[in-house]
Order: sequence, then C-alpha cells, then structure tokens
Amino acid sequence: MALKSILVVHGPNLNLLGTREPGVYGHGTLQDHLDTVRAAAARHGIAVSDIQSNSEGALVEAIHAARGVHDAMIVNAGAFTHYSWALHDALRAFDGPVIEVHLSNPTAREDFRHVSVLAGVVDGTISGLGGLGYELAVAALVSRG
Amino acid sequence: MALKSILVVHGPNLNLLGTREPGVYGHGTLQDHLDTVRAAAARHGIAVSDIQSNSEGALVEAIHAARGVHDAMIVNAGAFTHYSWALHDALRAFDGPVIEVHLSNPTAREDFRHVSVLAGVVDGTISGLGGLGYELAVAALVSRG
Amino acid sequence: MALKSILVVHGPNLNLLGTREPGVYGHGTLQDHLDTVRAAAARHGIAVSDIQSNSEGALVEAIHAARGVHDAMIVNAGAFTHYSWALHDALRAFDGPVIEVHLSNPTAREDFRHVSVLAGVVDGTISGLGGLGYELAVAALVSRG
Amino acid sequence: MALKSILVVHGPNLNLLGTREPGVYGHGTLQDHLDTVRAAAARHGIAVSDIQSNSEGALVEAIHAARGVHDAMIVNAGAFTHYSWALHDALRAFDGPVIEVHLSNPTAREDFRHVSVLAGVVDGTISGLGGLGYELAVAALVSRG
Amino acid sequence: MALKSILVVHGPNLNLLGTREPGVYGHGTLQDHLDTVRAAAARHGIAVSDIQSNSEGALVEAIHAARGVHDAMIVNAGAFTHYSWALHDALRAFDGPVIEVHLSNPTAREDFRHVSVLAGVVDGTISGLGGLGYELAVAALVSRG
Amino acid sequence: MALKSILVVHGPNLNLLGTREPGVYGHGTLQDHLDTVRAAAARHGIAVSDIQSNSEGALVEAIHAARGVHDAMIVNAGAFTHYSWALHDALRAFDGPVIEVHLSNPTAREDFRHVSVLAGVVDGTISGLGGLGYELAVAALVSRG
Amino acid sequence: MALKSILVVHGPNLNLLGTREPGVYGHGTLQDHLDTVRAAAARHGIAVSDIQSNSEGALVEAIHAARGVHDAMIVNAGAFTHYSWALHDALRAFDGPVIEVHLSNPTAREDFRHVSVLAGVVDGTISGLGGLGYELAVAALVSRG
Amino acid sequence: MALKSILVVHGPNLNLLGTREPGVYGHGTLQDHLDTVRAAAARHGIAVSDIQSNSEGALVEAIHAARGVHDAMIVNAGAFTHYSWALHDALRAFDGPVIEVHLSNPTAREDFRHVSVLAGVVDGTISGLGGLGYELAVAALVSRG
Amino acid sequence: MALKSILVVHGPNLNLLGTREPGVYGHGTLQDHLDTVRAAAARHGIAVSDIQSNSEGALVEAIHAARGVHDAMIVNAGAFTHYSWALHDALRAFDGPVIEVHLSNPTAREDFRHVSVLAGVVDGTISGLGGLGYELAVAALVSRG
Amino acid sequence: MALKSILVVHGPNLNLLGTREPGVYGHGTLQDHLDTVRAAAARHGIAVSDIQSNSEGALVEAIHAARGVHDAMIVNAGAFTHYSWALHDALRAFDGPVIEVHLSNPTAREDFRHVSVLAGVVDGTISGLGGLGYELAVAALVSRG
Amino acid sequence: MALKSILVVHGPNLNLLGTREPGVYGHGTLQDHLDTVRAAAARHGIAVSDIQSNSEGALVEAIHAARGVHDAMIVNAGAFTHYSWALHDALRAFDGPVIEVHLSNPTAREDFRHVSVLAGVVDGTISGLGGLGYELAVAALVSRG
Amino acid sequence: MALKSILVVHGPNLNLLGTREPGVYGHGTLQDHLDTVRAAAARHGIAVSDIQSNSEGALVEAIHAARGVHDAMIVNAGAFTHYSWALHDALRAFDGPVIEVHLSNPTAREDFRHVSVLAGVVDGTISGLGGLGYELAVAALVSRG
Repeated sequence: MALKSILVVHGPNLNLLGTREPGVYGHGTLQDHLDTVRAAAARHGIAVSDIQSNSEGALVEAIHAARGVHDAMIVNAGAFTHYSWALHDALRAFDGPVIEVHLSNPTAREDFRHVSVLAGVVDGTISGLGGLGYELAVAALVSRG
Repeated sequence: MALKSILVVHGPNLNLLGTREPGVYGHGTLQDHLDTVRAAAARHGIAVSDIQSNSEGALVEAIHAARGVHDAMIVNAGAFTHYSWALHDALRAFDGPVIEVHLSNPTAREDFRHVSVLAGVVDGTISGLGGLGYELAVAALVSRG
Repeated sequence: MALKSILVVHGPNLNLLGTREPGVYGHGTLQDHLDTVRAAAARHGIAVSDIQSNSEGALVEAIHAARGVHDAMIVNAGAFTHYSWALHDALRAFDGPVIEVHLSNPTAREDFRHVSVLAGVVDGTISGLGGLGYELAVAALVSRG
Repeated sequence: MALKSILVVHGPNLNLLGTREPGVYGHGTLQDHLDTVRAAAARHGIAVSDIQSNSEGALVEAIHAARGVHDAMIVNAGAFTHYSWALHDALRAFDGPVIEVHLSNPTAREDFRHVSVLAGVVDGTISGLGGLGYELAVAALVSRG
Repeated sequence: MALKSILVVHGPNLNLLGTREPGVYGHGTLQDHLDTVRAAAARHGIAVSDIQSNSEGALVEAIHAARGVHDAMIVNAGAFTHYSWALHDALRAFDGPVIEVHLSNPTAREDFRHVSVLAGVVDGTISGLGGLGYELAVAALVSRG
Repeated sequence: MALKSILVVHGPNLNLLGTREPGVYGHGTLQDHLDTVRAAAARHGIAVSDIQSNSEGALVEAIHAARGVHDAMIVNAGAFTHYSWALHDALRAFDGPVIEVHLSNPTAREDFRHVSVLAGVVDGTISGLGGLGYELAVAALVSRG
Repeated sequence: MALKSILVVHGPNLNLLGTREPGVYGHGTLQDHLDTVRAAAARHGIAVSDIQSNSEGALVEAIHAARGVHDAMIVNAGAFTHYSWALHDALRAFDGPVIEVHLSNPTAREDFRHVSVLAGVVDGTISGLGGLGYELAVAALVSRG
Repeated sequence: MALKSILVVHGPNLNLLGTREPGVYGHGTLQDHLDTVRAAAARHGIAVSDIQSNSEGALVEAIHAARGVHDAMIVNAGAFTHYSWALHDALRAFDGPVIEVHLSNPTAREDFRHVSVLAGVVDGTISGLGGLGYELAVAALVSRG
Repeated sequence: MALKSILVVHGPNLNLLGTREPGVYGHGTLQDHLDTVRAAAARHGIAVSDIQSNSEGALVEAIHAARGVHDAMIVNAGAFTHYSWALHDALRAFDGPVIEVHLSNPTAREDFRHVSVLAGVVDGTISGLGGLGYELAVAALVSRG
Repeated sequence: MALKSILVVHGPNLNLLGTREPGVYGHGTLQDHLDTVRAAAARHGIAVSDIQSNSEGALVEAIHAARGVHDAMIVNAGAFTHYSWALHDALRAFDGPVIEVHLSNPTAREDFRHVSVLAGVVDGTISGLGGLGYELAVAALVSRG
Repeated sequence: MALKSILVVHGPNLNLLGTREPGVYGHGTLQDHLDTVRAAAARHGIAVSDIQSNSEGALVEAIHAARGVHDAMIVNAGAFTHYSWALHDALRAFDGPVIEVHLSNPTAREDFRHVSVLAGVVDGTISGLGGLGYELAVAALVSRG
Repeated sequence: MALKSILVVHGPNLNLLGTREPGVYGHGTLQDHLDTVRAAAARHGIAVSDIQSNSEGALVEAIHAARGVHDAMIVNAGAFTHYSWALHDALRAFDGPVIEVHLSNPTAREDFRHVSVLAGVVDGTISGLGGLGYELAVAALVSRG
C-alpha cells in the first residue's frame, strides 16, 4: 500500500531543540528536523503533518486523531518515553507503522532514560544518530509502506 | 444521607472504547458504559455527570470541582491508574466515596498494570467484569449512600 | 446458559468474621454474608452451596468437587489469597466463572496483602465494599450467566 | 489477672523432634519439651494443653478454639513460621499474650528461615536456647500474667 | 543394599491429571503414572505404595510414616513444590534417596514455578519428560539402590 | 548580578492548600504562601510572578517562557516531584538558580514521596518548614543573586 | 562448668531508658534492668559487671577485655544491632555464650530494625518481653553454664 | 515559647571544611559556618553552643546532654547521615525542633548519599545552599520558636 | 519416528571429569559417561556422536551442524548453562528433542548455578543422578523417539 | 573525512538467518543482508568486509584487526549483545563510528534481550526494521563520514 | 618525590590478630605485621607510624592528622571496610597514595564482606596474601613514591 | 616446595595494552608486563610461560594444560573476570596458587566491573597498582612457594 501521509510527533521540551544542551542533542532545531522529514517525504510524494506538545493529553489526542488520517508515525516522545503509559496505550490503538527516533543514545545516558515504556508498541527504533535519524525513519517507512 | 449526584471519571484512551482491542476491553463504547451508569442511577433518582479526558490536569481539576458538588465518584483512570500520583492526591482531597472500575483484570495483564497508585485512596474496586462493573459500582454507591 | 448453582468458598479465619477486627472487616458474620448471597441468588432461582475451611486441602477438594456440579463460584480465600498456589491450580481447573470478593481493600493494607496469587485465574474481583461485595458478586454472575 | 491455662502449639515436623537433625534441634523430644512446660507451669498452678499438627488448618482451628478458653499461648510453628499468613491471621484474633519459641536461632540458618510472618503478631520471641526456651516462655507468661 | 519398597508422593490437584490442561500435563491420569511406576518396580521386585493428597499436613505425615518403612521416594509435589517449607523439612528427615519428578518443565512456565523449595533436599530431579519421568525415576532409584 | 524577577511554580493539587489535609500541609492557602514570597521579595525590590497548574504541560511551558524573563525560580511541584521527568528536563533548560520547597518533609511520609526526580536539577531544597520555607527560599535566592 | 561472671553490654541511647519513648521501651531504667540481672545472678552466686556506651569502639574493647575474664555475656546493642559489623566481629572472638536481649520486638517496628548483624554470632535471642528478658537471659546462661 | 539556646552539631570530617573538596563543599571553614550561626542567632538574643566530633558516640552523648539545656538543634551529620541509626535514636529522644543542613545537595551526588537515616526524625531539611543554609536554619528555628 | 542418531554435547571443563572435585561430580570420566550413552543407545540401534568443547563458538557450531544430521541431543553445558545465551539461541534452532543432564543438583550448590539460561529451550532435565543421568537421558529420548 | 571501508560484524547463530524463526527474524539470509550493505555502500564507493562468527574470541580479534584498516563498523552481535563485556571492551578500542543493528526489536521480546552491554559503546542503534536496518546503517555512516 | 613516612592504619578487632580465627586470619599478630612493614620500609629509609583503633572517630582523626605529616598510608580497616562512610570521606581528604590490605580474601567470605565502601578512594588493594600483603604494600608505595 | 614454573594468563583485549585507554590502563604493553614478570621470576630461577587469548575456550584449555606442568599462575582475565564461570571452574581445577592482577581498580570503575566471578577461586588479588602489580604477584608466589 502506498504511504501517503505521515504524522511526526514530538514530546515535551523538544520545542527547545537547538538551544538546550547542544552537546547532547545537537544544534538542529525542531524546525530543522521537521524540514528533514518533509524533504525526505516529498521525494516520495508523502505529505507530512506534525505536532509538538508538552502536554501528554494533547499528544494522546493527536495520536487518536491520526487514526484513519495518517498512514504512519515518527515519534520522539522526549521524557514521556520513560513513563507515559497513556502514550503507550494510545500508540497501541494506531494501526500503521510507528518508528521511534531519539537524537542521542538513551542507553548511554542517565539511568531513567534506559527504560522505555513505548518500545513494546513501536515497530522500529533509531537512536543516537542525531537529525539523520529522522531521514532514516522516513526511509524505513517508505521501504515498509 | 441520600446520594444525589455522581461524577463518572474516565482517563486517557477510554474515549476509544469499543474500537480498541475489543478482545481485552469488550465492544461497549464509553457512551454505552455511561448509559449503563445513568440507567442504574436513574432508578434511584441520582443525577450523573461525567468527564473523560486524556489530560491528567483536566482530570485533577474535574475532581477538585466535584468537591461539594457531587456526592460520590466512579473512576476508571485508564493508564493513569499506574503512575499518576497527582490523581492520587486529588482523589485524597475528595470526601465522598470513590469506586474504581476496570473493564479487564489488570492483575492478569502486563506487569505495569499490576501496580495501582490509586488503590490506597479509593473505597472499593471492581475489575474484570466488563461493562457490568459500572452497574455494580452504582449499586455499591447506592448501598453505601 | 442459565445459572443454576453457585458455590461460595471461604478460606481460613473467615469463620471468625464479626468477632475479629470489626474496624477492618465490619460486623457482619460469615452467616450474614452467606444470607446475602442466598437472598440475592434466590431472586434468580439459583441454588447456593457453601464451604468455609481453614484447611487448604479441604478447599482444593471442594473446588474439585464443584466441577460439573456448580456453575460458578464466589471465592474469598482469606490469607490463602496471598500464597496458596495450590488453590490457584485448583481454580484453574474449574470451568465456570469465578468472582473474587474481599471485604476490605487488600492493596490499602499490609504489604503481604498486595500480592494475590489467585488474580490470574479469576474472572473478576470486587474489593473494599464490605458485605455488599457478595451481593454484587451474585449480580455479576447472573449478568454473565 | 491470674494466668490459669496455657495452650502450647507446635507446627509441622516437630513431632519428629529428638530424631531429626539433633545437631540442630537437640536430643529433646516434643514430649520432653511439653514436660518442661508442664513442670514450669505446675509450679504456678497453671494448666497446660497442647496441640501438635502438621496441618495448617488444624492449627488455625486450635487457635480459634483457644479464644476464651486459654489465657496465653506458646507457639513454635516450625516451617509455618516462614509462610503461613493464615496462622498470622489466626494469632491476631487471639487476645492473650503469645510467646514464640524456636529451639535453634533461625537467623543463623538458611535464608528462608530469616523471614518470620508471625513476628508481627506475637508479644515476645525466645530463640536459640533449645528446650530451655520453653521454660523461659512459661516464666515470661507468668511474669506478665 | 537392595531396594524393597518405594513410596510415590503426589501433591495437590494431581488427582485431576488427564482432565486438567492436557496441553501442559498430557493425557495420562494419576493412575496411569502409578501403573508406570508399579510396572517398572515390579521388574525389580520392588513394592510400591502411593499417596496423593491435596493437604500439606497429610503429605508431611505420609513422609514421616515412610521413615523405616520405605527405602526411597518419588515425589511430585505439584504447587507445593514452590512454597511448602513444611514438605522441605519433612523430606529432610527422610534418610533414603528421593527423586523429584515434574511432568512439564517448570522453568519454561510461569515465574512462580521457577522457584523450588524442595530442590535442596532431593537427590535428583527429572522434569519435562511427561509420564516417562516416573519410569526413569524408578530406574534411577534401582541404579542407586 | 542583581536579582530582579522570580517565578514561583506550583504543581498539581496545591491550589487546594489550606483545605486539604491541614494536619500535613498546614492551614496556609496558596495565596498565603505567594504573599509570603511577595513580601520577602519586595524588601529586595524583586518582582514575583507565579503559576499554579495541575497540568504538567502547562508547567513545562511556563518554565520555558521563564527563560530570559525571570532570573530565578521557586518550585513546589507537588506530586510531579516524584515522576515528572518532563519537568526535570524543562528545569534543566533554565539557566538561573532554582530552589525546591516542600511544606512537609517528604522523606517522613509515604514511600513514593521519597523519590524526587527533580533533585538532580535544582540548586537547593528546603523541606518540612511549612510556609516559612518560601520566605527562606527568597532569602536563599537573594543571598546567591 | 560453673558460671562465675557475666558481662552485661548495652549500646547507644540505652542510658536514656525510662525517659525515652516509654510506650515502646517501658518505664524501667537501665539501672532497673541491671538490678534485675544482678538479683537473678546473685541467686546463683554469679558476679555481674556491666558497661553501657554510646561508642562502638568502647563496646568492642569491653568485649575484648571480657575474654578470659567473664564467662558469658548479655548484650543489648541498641541501634548497633542493625549495622555494627565491628561488634559482630568482636562477639565472634568471645568464647563463652552470648544472649541477645531486646526490650521490644524489633520485627514489629521500623524496617531498619528487622535486620540484625549480630544474630549470626549470638547463642540465643529474647525479645519483646521488656525487663523480664534480662531475668530470662540470666536463667538461660545459668541453665547452659 | 522564646528560643534561648541552640546546639549546632557537626559530624565526621566536617572539621576539614574549607580544605576538603572546595568544589563540592565551598571555601567556608567550620568556624565560618559557626560564625554565621552565631551572628544570626545573636540578632535574636539566642545563645549558640556547638560540637563537632568524628566519633558517633560523642555526638550521641552531646545530643543527650542537650536535653533540657538547649531548645533546638541544627545538625549536619556528614557521613553519619547515611548509616548512623544510633544518631537517629538519639535525635528521636530530643524534644525540641531539629533542622538538618547539608552544604551540597546529597541527592545530586553518589548513591550512598541519597539515603538519609535521619530524615524521619528531623523537622526540616535545608540542602544545597552552602553556608547560607546555616543562616536559614536559624531563621527557621526563630520563626518556629 | 525411529531415533537413529544422537549428539552428546559437553561444555567447558567437563573433559576433566573424574579428576576434578570427585566429591561433587563423581569418579566417572567423560569417556565413562559417553560409554554409558553408547551402550544404552546401542541396545536400540542408535548411533552416538559426541563433542566436548571449552569453546562456546565450537559448541554453537556443533549444534548447527547437528541440524538435519542428528535426531536428538543430550546436553551438559557445564558452566555455560548459567550464562551462554548464544547456546540458548543455537538450541532453539534445533528441531529434535534435547535432554539436559547435570551430574550434580545445581540448585543445591552455589547461587550462580541456580540460574539456567538453557532451561527454556530444552525438553527435559535430569539432574543430581550422576552418570546414571546419561542412561536415563537415552531412555527418555528412545521413549519419545 | 571520506568513508572508504566498512566492516560488518555478525555474532553467534546469525549464520542461520533465513532458516531460524523467520516469524521473528524474517526470511532474509545473512548473505542477503550483506548484499544489502554492499549495494548501499557501492553507491558511495565504499568497500565492505564482513565477518560472522559464533566465537566471541574471533569477533574480538576481528574488531582489533579493523583498527587502522576499516573506517566504520556495522555490528549485529546476536546473543553476545546481552552479556559479552569482552566485545564491549573491544568496541571501545575502535576509533571509528559503530552502528548497532537488530533485525527485531529486542525490547519487545524476552527479558534477557532488554539488556544491552554494547549500547554504551556504539554511536547509534537501529532496531526492529528487519533487513532495511542494514541499508539505513550504511546511510547513517555515509552521512556522518 | 621521595617517600619518607608511612602511616599504617588498622581498624576494629585487628588488635586480636593471632588469637582470633587463625584459620581465617593466620597466626601473625598485629605486631608481626607492623614489624613486616617496618623492616620493609627501613630498607628504603622510610619511617613508619601506626595506629590501631576500635573507634571509628579515632581512625578518622588519625587520618586527618596524617595530612601534611605522612606521605602515604597502608589501611586495613577491618569491619569498617564494609560500612564506614566516615572513613571513606576521611581517606578522600588525604592527598598521598593509599594501599588497602586484607589478610584474607573478603570476596570469598560472608556476603557482608563483599561490599567495600573504601574501594573507591584507595589507589590499590592487596588481599588474600596474609602478612605478605603488608610487605607488598610497602613495595607498591616505594615503587610509586 | 620450590616454585619452578609460573603461567601468566591474560584475557581478552589485553593484547591491546599500551594503545587502549592509557589513562585507565597505563602506557605499558602486554610485553612490558610479561618482561616485568620474567625479570622478577628470573631472580628466583623461576621459568615463566604465558598465554594471552581473546577466546574463553583457549584460556580454559591453557589452564587445564597447566595442571602438573606449572606450579602457580598469575591471571588477569580482563572482561572475563566479570562473567566467565567457565574460567571460574577451570581455575578451581588447578591445584597451585593463583594470584589475580588488575592494572586499574575495578571497584572504582563501571558497575559491571565490580562483580568478579573469579574472586572465590583465587588465592590473592592485587589491583590498582598498574604494572607493579605483576612484580608483586611474583613476590607473593615466591613468598608462598
């Protein structure tokens, strides 16, 4: 089935990307990463929607709204990765493929970032590759599409 | 004291009931369960208000607002059951009886669903009985009222 | 299928109900709770048998004997709830629905009462509602019957 | 209040005392230890009843039957010390003083003997003193009586 | 020393063998397994006694009674394998060899079946081989006898 | 550098202060505590802004908005103290000093309140001193300013 | 061998007995308990020396000095019971019998009091019996002497 | 009640303050911190006594001696914070308010510094604020006095 | 299906059997045990191949090579039993039955020998029966063959 | 710096790819995955070497030999991912970028696959995307090169 | 820099060396070990001071006093090795090299001896070599000096 | 008995010494350390053989081959120290003394290096002293020889 539309979901504090701990997260802004996704998707004629929210409820609802509207998701849930079972349940209710992206390698950082409550409900994970992870995530979705 | 008004509180993702994993949660929609509560309550002349939210903050505030307005609560907090200490604190500040309802039996599912951070602040729990749990919860409140 | 016969199973020390820690367990005696079950069941033409035993072996055998004789069970296993894997295995071999009842809310009491070795093999649990729990258990069985 | 009657309760395998691992438990038989209790009690005009059982249910019921009949108990629950929450609940329902006796020092033995599920519901514990522990237990009860 | 008499000990729920979860335990009944033992033993002129009980106390006493009467034991303690320290102590007081048999491989099943409180006091264990385990257990005892 | 502006951040349920568990939290309302802060700050010519929210997302955003606007923060995150890694990340992105205040001593209360996910990203903590903690927090900021 | 001399060792804070938490420790002072020991010992012609110290080092040295001088010890190490491996090592180097006494039942109090680092190197323990424990400890030493 | 006299208690290694790890503990010496306390106390006519000891026993005895002599305490127990149950018991026997001060934030340092065995018996804690913590501690005691 | 060929796999250090800790492992050499297997197999016309290696990689490859060549395996992986997930994965890829043999009873020895990473992928386990275990393993395979 | 040469490292059992659990690992063979890497690399003029070994030592040595020879690595260590600290140390001694690839999502499988001892020493991880992961790994290396 | 002066520090109970458990600690007395150190040091013109104390406070102060006076330390802290964070902090404040010596191998003894709270702040450890360890410790200091 | 021949055993990655993380392991190469051992041994007329392998199996076999050939061993097992139970078993089968050497202090590094599975089967351990540790190890063996 051709992939027509992707939703890119960003969690809390990722609106600060580029200004917060560049040594860890790099200098790319959230807009830069979205541009990466859009450019990669455009090459395959795929539309891209996005949401960034610091609110768990808003993210849950965006994922609900994606059902039947978007074909796939790229998710970087930020700190919610480590405790939001509500996002876990929301992702479980989405039928399309979901790729999780982390700019840094969570397993090489603080202990609380070693636990992912989302890992069981995503199809693939790409971490530690900075902004490139987003481009690869599109490639992964296209390839599976 | 006669019970006049109940607030029914639903947590994240429960707006999807009926469409999400019916093998686990059944085919009843949230509206079906609310109808069950309303019908049961009506037989005792009890008014029913309800809130469903995917936002922890909105639920906390709905519980605050219930103080002095509703006499009792029926709560199905969904995934928040397992980590929302903010809901725990909010429920602790409500004086009336609170009955916790789970459609499925959390203890028979994944590990993270075995921990309830709400159990210490509710009066009774009914789980594993599907939509019937809501009817029994009303009966429990009426009986204690 | 019409529900014709229920077995009510009580575990150790529950013969003392009404005389032991009424602040926790209430003033109702075991006989009171059985009367509650019988009255509720009678309204639906359902026969009720019961056993209370302080012996794990006797309870295991009563559950075995119920196979093919009773259609459903209501079980309050008392302290056995927390360590009797033999009861767990026995209940697993019973085909009909089983509702677990606890007068108080075990999760709000001592740590050892937070673990239930039976939860994985019962269909529903009603806890924290005192004697009313028995009435609701009958309702639950009737409704599923 | 004068102490008139003591029940001595022995748990599983203690009927083998004197024949089983004398290096650990000593050469005294169960009868020897009961004789010790009786002699010590007789000096204070106290009657002594006793039960040894390998069945948890029988011990629970003996403790129930002691309510209103005996004024105090001396309990050596053997292996049940380490997992019988049913005995824990039964002892909690007994109003008089209870002294726990262990022939050997459980904390200096295998790990599973370090956990006592009875410790929270007895008034005193005497361990590691062999048969003398029984004599001291009588002295303790008399002194508190 | 020639082996003249074996006691076969079965714990709770094993009287249901053949009717309970044949996918896990096979279609053989308890009688079938005892027949296997008897046939194998008869080839070596060994008498076989057996006990099955759902009562921990009855099993403890059967093991006591075996002292000086039977030369060896085959034990399948069912769920008691996982928590009955009383059986542990009873087996420790038996001088002859003891072979533990499990029809299925407990380590490949639920977590609670990974812990054996008997393993430290048996001479050998045979698991996962279904009814054949009983025949091998006789062979093991004969070979060591 | 002179301290010109402080943001005071309050987490979930703290809007109920004065009405909820005064035995634990005291009789002071949130407004009382803000008045304390304002009076103390006014003596040093410092402006005070405040936010209370029951929504994690709103708090994260208020902390983001404080960057470049306020020089320091006083934070009482309520129950979020114990699990909100999103607040942890948000505070880490704020450059000025942050003082954490708790009305009661969390370490002397329930277990879940012993864990603070914020402790690693605040400069100082004042707990157990009731409303006075706010006055001291201002003094601490002024002294460091 | 006749018992001629006992050393009674008390650890930190026990000099406050009678004034500190009488609900837990009783109204008896340290002197009262020493009088109890002396009176009981005098009936058997046994001399009693004692030391109370809040210093671990002083206690270790008193135990060293007891080697070859005293025949037995009664030890109530107070809080050191729970972490002083130095006392553990010192007691291990003493050849005579050692009885540990606790006025209250440590296992029924806070968690940190459940761990005893001394239990492995004492001969017997008497706990929960108040000042009577000291009298029984003398009886135990005399009986073993 | 007017506060007339404060005891300031410092534990092991704090006599080295100013020379040991200034990056962690700052450049202030113990005398500097005591001067801070004295100056702050003098403004309220409060006398200040102090003790620093590297010996647990000496600290326990200083706390005992403070009973009836000093009205309040400021305690920085250094490494004893993390394992001295003897200090815990001693502080529990002191009737006046006790404020715990830590120069650095223990929760942001090594794991062993995350556990405080004193937290349950102090009234308030001020940490991470360097020498200022002492001044705030006096303010806290005065305000409660 | 008739069983024609068995591979016997021995892990590290088992080439030393007979010379290493005979008190634990017995006096039989590896050759003795292989002779046992061969003799037992010969009675059923079954060919026996064997490999002993101290190299995990060589064992993994021997198991791979057995696919389609041997019908069954007998495995005593020595210390690899406790940590070699690579052997676990290799055995999972073998279609025929696998019986695990241990000369001694691992659960009665050091802690690290209680964990088996192979248990989940073998069909049966025979332990604690010395060299006889190998004979029984052949019998088990023949019986299932 | 231009990337000229990549080493692809495969650990134990991966030589069986395509024949072992295709439901988990897919139908692609190891050769298929290497072809994917070669094709992707060829488009950038990058040479590809590869090694698959079931021997930890051979893998360690291949990684040593890559120093100064290859510019980057793609590693799928199979089961060694979960316990081979020797591979961890070897990878730490390699200066170029290392991308870890897993065909399936280890976090969604058995517990032992949740622990990665290599995560701390790789630059990026791509998991759950099947053979596509290899193509993305090349893209990642090219992009960083 | 030439090494001129070493302080040898011994902890609790080590004054008993030679008389206590020679099977574990050997027959050498503390004086013997100090003679070993002195003889080895004399060959290099190094002065040796020593302290043994059973008091943690005295040891902390001896280590403080060594600052600027002694160039290096040899430490055998006995049981304090396992819990004295105060010694840990004291050693951290000493600038010269510190070698830890243990007569026996703590890791081969009881569990509590496996934990060393000093290991993080010493430069080298020599254990299990009896009195020779002291000679090697001098050699190590000389070689590094 | 005179010591004639020592085997020096090095585990994985130690062939890289001098080139890998010199800040941790120093600048000495493996050859340097072997030269140290040879020079020290030559002074006592002791022959030195050595093996370095990255393969666990090769190391196990070298240790087997040393039985009856070498009188003692010096072992630095590198990362195998932390998980190779096969090496543990191999060393247990070697009769002569074994000294473990670590260049750095494992307890002061990452968590996984705190666990040694070899500690229970070596006679002495020297760690944290760099290349000097090898010289001391020879001295230790000579002294015990």
